[in-house]
Amino acid sequence: MTEPSSRSLETARALIPRAATPGTRGEAYAPANIALCKYWGKRDEDLKLPVTGSLSISMGPLGTRMRIEPAETDALVLNNAPQSADGKAATRLFAFLDLFRPPDLRLKVDSHNTIPMAAGLASSASAFAAAVKAMDALFGWNLSNVDKSILARLGSGSACRSVFDGFVEWRRGEEADGMDSIATPLHVDWPEFRVGILTVSEAEKPVGSTEGMRRTMDTSALYQSWPEQVAIDLPAIRAAVHNRDFPTLGRVAERNALAMHATMISAWPPVLYWQPETVQALRRVHALRHAGIEVYATMDAGPNVKLLFTDSDEAAVNKTFPDLVTVRPFDKI
Amino acid sequence: MTEPSSRSLETARALIPRAATPGTRGEAYAPANIALCKYWGKRDEDLKLPVTGSLSISMGPLGTRMRIEPAETDALVLNNAPQSADGKAATRLFAFLDLFRPPDLRLKVDSHNTIPMAAGLASSASAFAAAVKAMDALFGWNLSNVDKSILARLGSGSACRSVFDGFVEWRRGEEADGMDSIATPLHVDWPEFRVGILTVSEAEKPVGSTEGMRRTMDTSALYQSWPEQVAIDLPAIRAAVHNRDFPTLGRVAERNALAMHATMISAWPPVLYWQPETVQALRRVHALRHAGIEVYATMDAGPNVKLLFTDSDEAAVNKTFPDLVTVRPFDKI
Repeated sequence: MTEPSSRSLETARALIPRAATPGTRGEAYAPANIALCKYWGKRDEDLKLPVTGSLSISMGPLGTRMRIEPAETDALVLNNAPQSADGKAATRLFAFLDLFRPPDLRLKVDSHNTIPMAAGLASSASAFAAAVKAMDALFGWNLSNVDKSILARLGSGSACRSVFDGFVEWRRGEEADGMDSIATPLHVDWPEFRVGILTVSEAEKPVGSTEGMRRTMDTSALYQSWPEQVAIDLPAIRAAVHNRDFPTLGRVAERNALAMHATMISAWPPVLYWQPETVQALRRVHALRHAGIEVYATMDAGPNVKLLFTDSDEAAVNKTFPDLVTVRPFDKI
Repeated sequence: MTEPSSRSLETARALIPRAATPGTRGEAYAPANIALCKYWGKRDEDLKLPVTGSLSISMGPLGTRMRIEPAETDALVLNNAPQSADGKAATRLFAFLDLFRPPDLRLKVDSHNTIPMAAGLASSASAFAAAVKAMDALFGWNLSNVDKSILARLGSGSACRSVFDGFVEWRRGEEADGMDSIATPLHVDWPEFRVGILTVSEAEKPVGSTEGMRRTMDTSALYQSWPEQVAIDLPAIRAAVHNRDFPTLGRVAERNALAMHATMISAWPPVLYWQPETVQALRRVHALRHAGIEVYATMDAGPNVKLLFTDSDEAAVNKTFPDLVTVRPFDKI
């Protein structure tokens, strides 16, 4: 970790009140989120500061519930399964908690994902957001949600968006210490909005998203135009959300996702997350649209496809995709 | 057609000697070609002037043999099948021949593609190159090959490359009349070079390449970086050909093809030529490379995949792709 970033990490940690002592337990829930305007590329890897802003929809009841309590030794239990202390999940989580806890405090973390495994959704965003919220509850820090978003970002960039429900914008920010790279909710209620999660392949990712972003930035000539794509798409999606203009939202979100994958595909070696079934699903979505169904696709750093539609087309979409896991982001939990 | 282009067409037509009279017949052959550095985007649609230069390998024995002779009425016979006078193929070909022939001259055209239908290779490049060569023979114009490439380009952009055998570079040119947008051969003999044609899908193209180019230029923000990609890739491929450096040639050619498809995928509506089998073939190519086989992929405006390799890996490549149609571009016809 370079000096400037270490100092910048201190700026974020200074948000936490000093001399707070832990209570007996802290418990919190945070939803997963799906970006409608994607986050792809970090301008600072340590602080996880993005090259561009992004905009997501939180997944309501699909997310992570986490309980944190003082303990004799660090321990992580994930979906009732105790994890090895030197395993990937525990190492990453406790390194993150080290940013916030007194050096002599050990913690037991009990984490439950309400995301069906079959959904193939990344759980790191909801996990790091839930961890910050649970730490806030454990210590009684009483942080603002915006401050929580800054801390969650240090665990996983997109975790900053999982601090909020509904539509959430992560502003790029300009400061080197990232204190203006924050998530804020759009405060738009849209009960008819649906996100369908289509698991098209269980094939393992060829490359993680951090490495995928890095390789894209380093080797794709087309990536140079990505910030310009986002400069077009992000305000368009924000306006479409405020206007509840679903066709515009869907169209721009699909274009943005395809453009992100285009930058990956043009990296070297190619960052090809698509599987044959990904293309098949995209073609089915295009055929449905051709038949007048307002359904759009988005994809993240993996082969699965997420469908965007509203309640009026839910039956038609389910007919074509019977295995779809459909989320109602605005249902009360 | 706009006025400036009409004048520019005249400049190209002025290459043809006046007052020549047709002989009894003209006959010629031209190969198909596969671009290693792609042509995607026209800066002038009438003159088919490209946004960037490109570089191809001619397909040796796969191409078009054409015989043209004066007749009572215009008639096109394609692979022994008489074509309807107002069909797409005949209309396009005779409109092209109108550029060169005296107004009162009717022609019978007998065209044979030696490209297996299953190969799914575009035949327009070889057809228009063969047409120019056959007209040259019919009238005894005795045009230079470079002048033939200018005339062939007016039929189909990539046809200018099919005037030559082996590796061919199509220079972008700067002039508004396109007289410097010409193809020239690289004069490199590389008998070990192989091109494998893999027909992964017989599905019809969702959109023709002229419309695909137009839509990409009009709607893809990433396309703005395409000329820069070519500015990197074209000299790299040219040097790799001269150095007979196959791994570099393959790597840059695959990256260039993927970058071209990336610009298509990020257009709206998406220009998605890929089929599920396209992704499967790409993944197989990547797995072969992982196993040490020097094989690379390139793709044009369609779902099929062309493989680049050399004779030493031919057996290994054929084992994975038993239906491959393999071309030896440097075999004497």
